[in-house]
Amino acid sequence: MSIEQQNGTTVLRHEPDYTPPRSWRTWLIGRPLPTADAPHQTVSKVVGLAVFASDALSSTAYATQEMLAVLAVAGTMALGHAFPISIAIFTLLVIVTVSYEQTIHAYPGGGGAYIVSRDNLGELPAQTAGAALLTDYILTVAVSISSGVAQIISAWPALYPYRVAIAVGFVLFIMLINLRGVRESGAIFAFPTYLFLGMISVTVLVGLVRYLTGSLGTVADPPELLTAGTVQSIGLFLILRAFANGTTALTGVEAISNGIPAFREPKSRNAGITLIWMSALLGVLLLGITFLATRISAVPSEAETVISQLARTALGGRGLLYLVTIAGTTVILVMAANTSFADFPRLGALLAVDGFLPRQLAYRGSRLVFSRGIALLAGVASLLIIIFRASVTRLIPLYAIGVFLSFTLSQAGMAHRWWKIGHLSPGQEVKERGSTLRPESGWKLKMGINGFGALSTAVVAVVFAVTKFAEGAWVVLILMPLLILAFSAIHRHYRHLARRLSLDAFGAPPPVLRHRVILPLSGVHRGTLEALRYARRLSDDVTAVHVSTDPAEAEKVRAKWEQWGEGVRLVILDSPYRLLLEPLLAYVQEIADHRQPNETITIVVPQFVPRHWWNSLLHTRTANMLRLALLFKPGIVITDVPYQVE
Amino acid sequence: MSIEQQNGTTVLRHEPDYTPPRSWRTWLIGRPLPTADAPHQTVSKVVGLAVFASDALSSTAYATQEMLAVLAVAGTMALGHAFPISIAIFTLLVIVTVSYEQTIHAYPGGGGAYIVSRDNLGELPAQTAGAALLTDYILTVAVSISSGVAQIISAWPALYPYRVAIAVGFVLFIMLINLRGVRESGAIFAFPTYLFLGMISVTVLVGLVRYLTGSLGTVADPPELLTAGTVQSIGLFLILRAFANGTTALTGVEAISNGIPAFREPKSRNAGITLIWMSALLGVLLLGITFLATRISAVPSEAETVISQLARTALGGRGLLYLVTIAGTTVILVMAANTSFADFPRLGALLAVDGFLPRQLAYRGSRLVFSRGIALLAGVASLLIIIFRASVTRLIPLYAIGVFLSFTLSQAGMAHRWWKIGHLSPGQEVKERGSTLRPESGWKLKMGINGFGALSTAVVAVVFAVTKFAEGAWVVLILMPLLILAFSAIHRHYRHLARRLSLDAFGAPPPVLRHRVILPLSGVHRGTLEALRYARRLSDDVTAVHVSTDPAEAEKVRAKWEQWGEGVRLVILDSPYRLLLEPLLAYVQEIADHRQPNETITIVVPQFVPRHWWNSLLHTRTANMLRLALLFKPGIVITDVPYQVE
Repeated sequence: MSIEQQNGTTVLRHEPDYTPPRSWRTWLIGRPLPTADAPHQTVSKVVGLAVFASDALSSTAYATQEMLAVLAVAGTMALGHAFPISIAIFTLLVIVTVSYEQTIHAYPGGGGAYIVSRDNLGELPAQTAGAALLTDYILTVAVSISSGVAQIISAWPALYPYRVAIAVGFVLFIMLINLRGVRESGAIFAFPTYLFLGMISVTVLVGLVRYLTGSLGTVADPPELLTAGTVQSIGLFLILRAFANGTTALTGVEAISNGIPAFREPKSRNAGITLIWMSALLGVLLLGITFLATRISAVPSEAETVISQLARTALGGRGLLYLVTIAGTTVILVMAANTSFADFPRLGALLAVDGFLPRQLAYRGSRLVFSRGIALLAGVASLLIIIFRASVTRLIPLYAIGVFLSFTLSQAGMAHRWWKIGHLSPGQEVKERGSTLRPESGWKLKMGINGFGALSTAVVAVVFAVTKFAEGAWVVLILMPLLILAFSAIHRHYRHLARRLSLDAFGAPPPVLRHRVILPLSGVHRGTLEALRYARRLSDDVTAVHVSTDPAEAEKVRAKWEQWGEGVRLVILDSPYRLLLEPLLAYVQEIADHRQPNETITIVVPQFVPRHWWNSLLHTRTANMLRLALLFKPGIVITDVPYQVE
Repeated sequence: MSIEQQNGTTVLRHEPDYTPPRSWRTWLIGRPLPTADAPHQTVSKVVGLAVFASDALSSTAYATQEMLAVLAVAGTMALGHAFPISIAIFTLLVIVTVSYEQTIHAYPGGGGAYIVSRDNLGELPAQTAGAALLTDYILTVAVSISSGVAQIISAWPALYPYRVAIAVGFVLFIMLINLRGVRESGAIFAFPTYLFLGMISVTVLVGLVRYLTGSLGTVADPPELLTAGTVQSIGLFLILRAFANGTTALTGVEAISNGIPAFREPKSRNAGITLIWMSALLGVLLLGITFLATRISAVPSEAETVISQLARTALGGRGLLYLVTIAGTTVILVMAANTSFADFPRLGALLAVDGFLPRQLAYRGSRLVFSRGIALLAGVASLLIIIFRASVTRLIPLYAIGVFLSFTLSQAGMAHRWWKIGHLSPGQEVKERGSTLRPESGWKLKMGINGFGALSTAVVAVVFAVTKFAEGAWVVLILMPLLILAFSAIHRHYRHLARRLSLDAFGAPPPVLRHRVILPLSGVHRGTLEALRYARRLSDDVTAVHVSTDPAEAEKVRAKWEQWGEGVRLVILDSPYRLLLEPLLAYVQEIADHRQPNETITIVVPQFVPRHWWNSLLHTRTANMLRLALLFKPGIVITDVPYQVE
C-alpha cells in the first residue's frame, strides 16, 4: 500500500504487483485482471471477416431448411418454390448491404441500431431498437446453438434424445469462455470461419459440378419429413411465410457496423469492404445451397439437417469430407452464438449507462467483461432452448422480427440524418453523440438509399409479424413493448433519484432537535449492557423495550433491569399471542408516527455473534428479523451492537 | 392498549378482546390463540384408552406380517413358527406392562423414559433416552402411515403407484391438523379406536369360529409373496430375526406413562388400569391375528397386507364388513402417527428447555402448539417415507431399537429409584425433579420387577440390533450417537453462553476512550450527507471512505466532498481490480486490528430505501453486502442510516 495526499484527501494505492486473493472464481474463470489491462487491439480485414461474419454466414445453415419446412405443407412439389424465394432474399440482402455501407462511413465509432436511432430519431425509437436488438441477440444464441446441435445429431443420430442438454451445455460453455474474457485473437476465429467457408464452398461446388454432369442424384435414405403446419395448397400466404423464414439468412449482417472501431485504419473503408465481401459470400452460399437442396430433393426434418443431406449427397456419403463439413458448420454456429455474447452485454452496458437498464449491467467483472450481462444472456437463452426443446423450426417464428425492426430503425435514422445534413448551412458542423454532421454532396441519393432500405426492411418485418403471428411471433410482439415499458420505468426511477439526491440548491440540513434511542432486549445480560452503554452514548433519551410472552420472564427482566439498567426506563410490551416481532414493530411505528420534526429515532439492537456457523441455529434470530423489518422504514436508524462470546 | 406502571416500569397491555391481524397462516391453521387459552382438560379411562392406545394397538396391523416376511425366506412351511414366536412376544409384553405399571405409580406427573433416566441415571442415559425416543417417534410416523397406506392399497390395488405421494400427503395432513392444535376431544379419538377394536375383534372371532367349525379355508387368490432376504433354511438366527420384527407390536406401550396428567383423579390408578386393558387387548389381538394368519396361509406382500387377507378370508370376500375393517385399520394407523405428533414436539420442547436442543423448539406457535417440532417431525418422517418408498418391511429394521432402548433405560432408572428408596432413612423424603422418593415396603420386589424388565428389553434391543444390523439397524446405531453428540454440543454452547453473559461478578464496563466512525460512500449526495450528519453526532473522529474503481469518479467525489464534507477527512481506496467490498473490509480490519483498548468502531452505512420492491434490483446493494460481511465481526458496530426518495 502506498499513501498519497491530494488536496487534503488521502489516497491508498496498492503496489503495481498487487493481486487480490484467490477464490473459487479464480479456478473457474481465471485470475482477476486490473482495469489498466483493458485491450486496445485492431484486426485486419481477413480477420475482421472471421470475427464479425460468423453470425451472418452461419445462418445459411438453417435459412434454406426453414424455407423448405414451410413449403413442405403444400406437398413435396411445392419445395421447388424455394429457389425463386431465395432470389428475392438475395435482392433484400443487396439493399440492406448498400444501406449499411453508408452507416459504416457515417459512424466510424460504431453505428449500431441503438446509437443511430438515439442520435437521429429520439428516445422511444432508440428504446425500441434496444429492445429489438436484445431479443435478437438472445434468439441468435438459442437458434444458432440449436442449429449447431442439429448438425451434430445429423452426424450422430443416437444423440437425438440429449439435444436439449447438449445445447444448454454449449450455452454454459460459451458463457464461461466469455466470463473469462478471451482475447478475441484472430487465429481462434479465423480458422473455423474459413474452415466452414472452405468446406461449404467445396460442397456447393462439387454439388453444382455433379448436377451439371448429371451424376448428383437425390438424397439417399432421406430422413422423416417435418412440416410446419397442416397440409394446405400453395398460395401467396404460404410463399410469404417461406420468405419470412428465409429472411433469417440476413440476421447478423449488421454486426460489422457495431464493430468498426475494431478494424485497422482506415477503419470505415476496411469495415465497408469487409461488409461487401461478407454479403457476397452469404448471398452466393444461400443461392447455391437452396438451389442444390431442391435439386437433390432434400427434406426438412428434425432428425437430419438439410446441410447434412446436401453434404452427404454431394460428397458421396458420410465420409471424412462430410464429417469435416458438419464439424465446420457446427463450430461456426457456436461461434455465431459467441458473437451475441460479445454484443448483448455491450449493448446492455450502453443501455445501463443511459439509465434504461439496471446499472449493474455496466459493471465490469473481475475479468473486465460485463459479467452480469453475459450471465443474463446465458440464462434467458438456455430457458428458450429448454422451452422450445432445441428445435430451430419452433424458435424461428420469434426470431427475425427483432432483426428487421432494428434494420428499419437504423436505416430510418440514417435517412433522417441525411435529411439533416441536407439542411445544414455550408461549412456548418453539428456534433452528435455518435457522429459529426457535415454538409455532404449527394445527400439526396444517400437519403433515398437508406429510406428505401428502411422501407424494404419495414415491409419484411410486417410480413414476418403477420405470417408468423400465430406460430409464436405474438410472444415477441407482446414482450417488446413490455421491455420498452421496463426501460422507461427504470429510466424514470434513476432520473427521479438523481434529482432528489442532487446537491444543487441543497441547503444545510436542519439541526437535529431530539434523538430517541430504543433498545429492544430479550433478557438482561452482558450483551444487553454493552448495547445499553452504546445507546447511552448516543442520547440521554433511551428506552429499553422487552416483549413479554411469559409474565415470570418479564418479572425477571424487570428485577434485573432495576439493578443493571442504570436508571434507563423500561417498557414491557405484553404479547398475549406470543408474537415477538409484531408488538415491537407496532411500538416503534407508534413512536415514529408521533415524533417531532427533526427527531431522529435509533434502534440499538444487541446482536449475538456466533462462534461457529451452527451456533446461530440455536438462537431465534429476532435481531435479524427486526432489522429486516425496520430497515426499509424511512427515518429510523438501526444500529447493531455485536456481542460475542469467545 | 392499557398502560400500567409497576415499580417504575411501564407495561403496555392489549385489551382482552384484542386479536392480532390476520395473515395467510390464519387461513391455513386458524386464528392465533392467546396464551391464557392453554387447555387443562382431563379424560376418563374409556377416552384415555382411545387417546393413548392407538399407537400400541395399531402395531398389530403390521407386527404379524413382518414376522411372516422374515420366516418366508425359509419357505412357506416356516411360516408356522410365527405363532410360537408371538407367544414369546406376549410374554415380553406382560413383563413390560408390569414394569410400566410401577412407573405410572411412581411418576404421577408423567414418567417418560427421558424424565425417569434423567432423575435416576444421569445426563448421558437421559440424552440416550431422548435420542432413542425422538428416533422412535419419527419412525412411528413413517411406519404407521406406510402401513395405513398399505391397507388402502390392499383394498384399491390401483393406487399402488401413488403410495409414496399418498403417504406424504397423510403426513402433511396430520401436520396441519397438529399445527392447528386440535383440542383432543374424546369423541374424535374414541370413535376410530373403538371402531378398529370392534372390527378387528369381529374379524378374529369370526375367523376363530370358522376355523373351529372347519369352514375357514385359506386365502383365495393370494398376493405375490414378498420375502425379506435370500432363501435360507430355518435356524436360530432366522427365528430371532422374526422375533425382532414381531416386537414392533410393543411400540407405543409406553405412551400412557407419558400421559398420566391427562387422566382424571386418581390419575395414577386410572392410568394404570388403562395400561393393563390396553396390554390385554394388544396381546390377545396379536395372538389371534398371528394364529389365524398362519392357519389361512396368509402371505406377506407389498401388494396386500396380512390384515386384508385375514379380513377377506374370515368375513367372506371384499364386502362391506371387509371395507369397514380396512378403513378402521387405516384410521387407527394414521392416529398412531398423530400420537407421535403430540409426543415428539413435547419431548423436543423438554429437551430444548433443558438446553439439549435449539431453544426454538420450546416456543409455542400462534396456536399454542410447539409448531417447529411438529414441522420438523413431518419433514424428517416424509423424508424417510420417500427414501424407503413407503415400505413397512424396509422401514422396520430401523424401528424397534429406539423403542427397546428407551424401555431399558426407563426400567433401569426405575430399578435404581427403588434401590435409592430402599436406602432412605425411615420418614426421609427426597424431592427429585419428576417425583418424590419416600420409604416404601416391598422395594426389593419392585426393584426386581423393573430390573427384570430392563434386562429383558435390553436383550431384545441387542437381538434386534444384531439380527437387523445389515438390513438397516446400523443407520440408527450410527445416528443415535451422533444425535447424542449434538445434544452435548448444543448443551455446551448454551451453558458457555449463559456463563459468559451472566451478570454475576460483572463489574461496570470500562469507560469508552475513543469512538471512531467510518462512513463508506459511493458518491456524495443528500443520502450521504444525512449519514454524515448522523456520524458527526456520534463522534468527532469521523473518516469518510470511498472505494475508487474509476479515477474520474474518485476525483468527482473528492471535489464534491471538499464542498459538502464539512471538513471531515476523506480516504480514497484505490481498487485496481474493481472490487468494492474487499478493499473496504481490509481497511476496516486494519483499523480494528490497531485500535486502542476500549476504542469503539462504528460503521455508518447510508442505506437506500427503495420506493418499490423492484427498485432495489436497480442498485448494487453494497450496503447490504457490507453489513453482512461486518455483522459477525466482534467489536464493530454497524449503523444503517436510511435515505428515501419519496
